[in-house]
Amino acid sequence: MTHQESITITTLGHTDIHDITTQVRRIVANSGIETGICHIFNVGSTGAIGMIEFEPGLAQDLPEMLDRIIPSDLDYGHEERWEDGNGHSHLQATLLGQGITVPVCEGRPMLGTWQQIFHLECDVKPRNRTVIITVTGD
Amino acid sequence: MTHQESITITTLGHTDIHDITTQVRRIVANSGIETGICHIFNVGSTGAIGMIEFEPGLAQDLPEMLDRIIPSDLDYGHEERWEDGNGHSHLQATLLGQGITVPVCEGRPMLGTWQQIFHLECDVKPRNRTVIITVTGD
Amino acid sequence: MTHQESITITTLGHTDIHDITTQVRRIVANSGIETGICHIFNVGSTGAIGMIEFEPGLAQDLPEMLDRIIPSDLDYGHEERWEDGNGHSHLQATLLGQGITVPVCEGRPMLGTWQQIFHLECDVKPRNRTVIITVTGD
Repeated sequence: MTHQESITITTLGHTDIHDITTQVRRIVANSGIETGICHIFNVGSTGAIGMIEFEPGLAQDLPEMLDRIIPSDLDYGHEERWEDGNGHSHLQATLLGQGITVPVCEGRPMLGTWQQIFHLECDVKPRNRTVIITVTGD
Repeated sequence: MTHQESITITTLGHTDIHDITTQVRRIVANSGIETGICHIFNVGSTGAIGMIEFEPGLAQDLPEMLDRIIPSDLDYGHEERWEDGNGHSHLQATLLGQGITVPVCEGRPMLGTWQQIFHLECDVKPRNRTVIITVTGD
Repeated sequence: MTHQESITITTLGHTDIHDITTQVRRIVANSGIETGICHIFNVGSTGAIGMIEFEPGLAQDLPEMLDRIIPSDLDYGHEERWEDGNGHSHLQATLLGQGITVPVCEGRPMLGTWQQIFHLECDVKPRNRTVIITVTGD
């Protein structure tokens, strides 16, 4: 069995992070699938999907960490060609990843108590994002 | 077809790394699935799953690399709020990722000769970990 | 339903990057699957798979970023033991990841306009790579 839905997220631009765990739980419930996997994917190359304990401290620490290891002010080849100011956004989203998969057990995403699913906007301007959730299993 | 099992791992805390390839191979064999994918997932936000050539040099290099790019002694918002000393643990596990997927071919995980599946403890204290393995396919 | 094919890539060594989106699209079309997921996986521990806007600037920026955060000239335990000069290659491929999953919608990989699938060679010498593509769904 396969079930697929999408959700939309309006972001404020770079460092804006959303907890999408509740939406994912609802879609897994909608699927009727008891045992399997659930894949969560950001359409577009400058938004990331991951898992973290979603609390205000880490919601600030995560984008700060990415800006520290992939800063905006290096000389990126992307900037020389396109001058759209988001070379670091692309690299951050590629390194963190644009999708994740979680197991489904007894009809629910099997996450730890402090393990939430987030969408992180890496681009430098507000974006309307589409996130596709696909559940497969029995 | 979908087959799911879990394994438990007792870790010694930060930098403790385990090769779980043998357990994953066994569960794929148990599944009876010949062609498909196998998903391996750490329940909890401070443990990571990945692939590496599992040998003593890299088993030391990997956590050292993570501690170099995400050190424990920066001023993390997580620490200001919770003071549990594991802000870097969360960020390391989020960046490396808490799950992976591998292909299943002819009833086996299709890995390279020097490509093993590991569990890395990023938290600062010993933990009992649950890893969920889900195999889907035909 | 499950459909699996492999492709081969001949690489020039460290930093060589290939856009494999066209091959993935063809295999998804071959599968006849309308709704599901597609998993793309590099067999071997020193090659990476990811997603990026595939243009010449970022094709240079991505391996440069990896060489900046995981340089070749640190003292890696892997080098002390094996002296094959690719300790950084292993760490880069492990951090970026050796596989990704994308959703399949209406018979096609559901990617953004500027979101392509790449294979990045992290090893220090030319390699013949096998990439396994598995499509599951309905």
